[in-house]
Amino acid sequence: MKLLYPTSLSLDPKLLEGFNASIHSYDVTKPIPEDLIDAECLITWCNSPSNLKDAASRCKKLKWIQALAAGPNDVLNAGFDPKTVTITTGSGLHDQTVAEHTLGMLLTAARKFHLMRDSQTQGKWPGNSGGPQPDKAPGTFTTLHEARILVWGFGNIAKTLTLYLRALGAEVKGVARHAGVRDGVQVYSEDQLPELLKETDALVMILPGSDSTKHALNAERLKVLPKHAWVVNVGRGTCIDEAALNSALDEGAIGGAALDVFEKEPLDESSPLYKQKNVILSPHAAGGRPRGAEGLIAENLRRFLAGQELKNVL
Amino acid sequence: MKLLYPTSLSLDPKLLEGFNASIHSYDVTKPIPEDLIDAECLITWCNSPSNLKDAASRCKKLKWIQALAAGPNDVLNAGFDPKTVTITTGSGLHDQTVAEHTLGMLLTAARKFHLMRDSQTQGKWPGNSGGPQPDKAPGTFTTLHEARILVWGFGNIAKTLTLYLRALGAEVKGVARHAGVRDGVQVYSEDQLPELLKETDALVMILPGSDSTKHALNAERLKVLPKHAWVVNVGRGTCIDEAALNSALDEGAIGGAALDVFEKEPLDESSPLYKQKNVILSPHAAGGRPRGAEGLIAENLRRFLAGQELKNVL
Ligand SMILES: NC(=O)c1ccc[n+]([C@@H]2O[C@H](COP(=O)([O-])OP(=O)(O)OC[C@H]3O[C@@H](n4cnc5c(N)ncnc54)[C@H](OP(=O)(O)O)[C@@H]3O)[C@@H](O)[C@H]2O)c1
Ligand SMILES: NC(=O)c1ccc[n+]([C@@H]2O[C@H](COP(=O)([O-])OP(=O)(O)OC[C@H]3O[C@@H](n4cnc5c(N)ncnc54)[C@H](OP(=O)(O)O)[C@@H]3O)[C@@H](O)[C@H]2O)c1
Repeated sequence: MKLLYPTSLSLDPKLLEGFNASIHSYDVTKPIPEDLIDAECLITWCNSPSNLKDAASRCKKLKWIQALAAGPNDVLNAGFDPKTVTITTGSGLHDQTVAEHTLGMLLTAARKFHLMRDSQTQGKWPGNSGGPQPDKAPGTFTTLHEARILVWGFGNIAKTLTLYLRALGAEVKGVARHAGVRDGVQVYSEDQLPELLKETDALVMILPGSDSTKHALNAERLKVLPKHAWVVNVGRGTCIDEAALNSALDEGAIGGAALDVFEKEPLDESSPLYKQKNVILSPHAAGGRPRGAEGLIAENLRRFLAGQELKNVL
Repeated sequence: MKLLYPTSLSLDPKLLEGFNASIHSYDVTKPIPEDLIDAECLITWCNSPSNLKDAASRCKKLKWIQALAAGPNDVLNAGFDPKTVTITTGSGLHDQTVAEHTLGMLLTAARKFHLMRDSQTQGKWPGNSGGPQPDKAPGTFTTLHEARILVWGFGNIAKTLTLYLRALGAEVKGVARHAGVRDGVQVYSEDQLPELLKETDALVMILPGSDSTKHALNAERLKVLPKHAWVVNVGRGTCIDEAALNSALDEGAIGGAALDVFEKEPLDESSPLYKQKNVILSPHAAGGRPRGAEGLIAENLRRFLAGQELKNVL
């Protein structure tokens, strides 16, 4: 059996050796070479739409696609036959990188580095953002210590983020489809949102993009957040109604928003979000560098060859 | 005996009750009221220079000053008689706040939030700072995971910072006057700096301001840092030769600098540091909000009344 791995990131093929499989590299921007179209497994990372379309129509023996993205919407929509092809995601490979970026966004918001930068750009001492000040004044979000952080979409990334947040003394709650305690965090179902949002200093959204998560954060739910609360989105842009978010910012109904993902990327330069003082705009930069991909591929290849259930089935 | 506490921050005097001492509040911007000049203990926070000068000349019974600042250079230079007055610092009250800010600076530098902000300000998608990218490419500082962080001045703040850095997977080493292992971190003496700086991705300076720390980071030492290395300073501005730092930035000899403290504050608007793309400028905003001050005051008051050695003697 043939496994194709992409040259769009640096993988060590030695870490995939030892199986009864032949390992070949391929270019994610070109059609699959003729001698590789009989591959049973395709690893994908930043493939061009035309490459995926080509693979979907020509790789007739394909049984398994291991995407390295955590939310491989591109692969999902490329036309592979779901009856014959199993797609597994790269969930887990982005936990540290996305969690680190999210923490950076939360600290930027709390410690006001974005406003300091604005002063610096104008050649001015950012006096308003510093100096002696009250600690944790009510109705402010100035530190993660004892801050009430609600993570909506409590999967792999959220669990790693929780470790970082707790080290800094934050109080973490989660929201997911299934309620319960996970890694010591109380996770609630979405029907609890009205009560939860009310008591939130920062809402972190790490939801996958799908029909059911579209505009999960809408005007109605934004209204429930306290005026000082920040919204952070590192999941998918479609999960927030961007127009409603912009209105909430205009009205001062929330404290600010740190966004790594957008309804359309790149965010159109006409978007009013660019001009919002308390929007921190990041260009889908949270992940973008799978960490430990070889380990996941090797484990799933082992399972595949053994006829066992794969990890991270979409 | 009388203890005077300042109204320049919100303290709960109830937490200072139960001792054989009378507790009075005072205004740090005015002369000490006539009926309080016989105080034996003065708690200071953001006192005006004239208030300190007044207290030094009029409070003849003063035996102990509890500063709430970690580096109370103002009190030290106000003219109190060191033979009769013991000064204790607020070291410990700023560990979490300064460490959190430092972490925010390191993450801003690594994840390039400052450059994203520049694009946003110009109404442009910050494409250069995001998207798919190699993980931990050699000669870059893009994540704290496995980053080599050298903390120069390994006291209370550094120990708290280490907890945060290790949660994110960083490799922490320390430099202080005395070598040894502290909280599981290998701490070196300053004569090891030439070798240590060479292997540093980010140098974090948390030194007190004093004659012996003046320009601790100078042109010669800056030269030893790798080209991608960042310098972070949250100790005192005098510890860095700012002109040499600016030259190093001009020459691309280091990756950047995140500065919360400066040789003169506010930093003069003519300083070339404002214009440095890879300078992150913060207005002495790391601390500025003592956390848990009552606990330290009460403990030292207990020791004072018992005739025991005080904590944090300068
Ligand atoms: N910004 C970036 O660069 C970047 C990088 C990587 C990933 N991401 C995004 O982050 C997402 C999450 O990644 P992950 O690895 O943490 O995924 P994960 O482990 O699969 O977790 C997803 C979480 O979302 C919840 N969820 C899924 N569908 C939902 C729905 N319809 N309504 C409410 N909750 C729902 C799940 O709930 P249950 O646990 O109850 O099932 C789970 O808690 C990815 O799908 C991707 O879109 C972004
Ligand atoms: N930016 C802000 O808002 C802010 C807020 C609070 C504090 N600070 C600054 O941070 C400094 C450190 O605070 P801290 O509470 O961590 O202090 P600390 O616990 O007293 O630690 C000071 C550290 O610096 C080392 N050190 C002192 N003098 C030195 C010298 N001449 N050469 C080399 N190392 C020296 C000490 O070495 P040994 O352990 O070997 O003695 C110790 O490791 C304060 O003095 C203050 O200036 C800034």
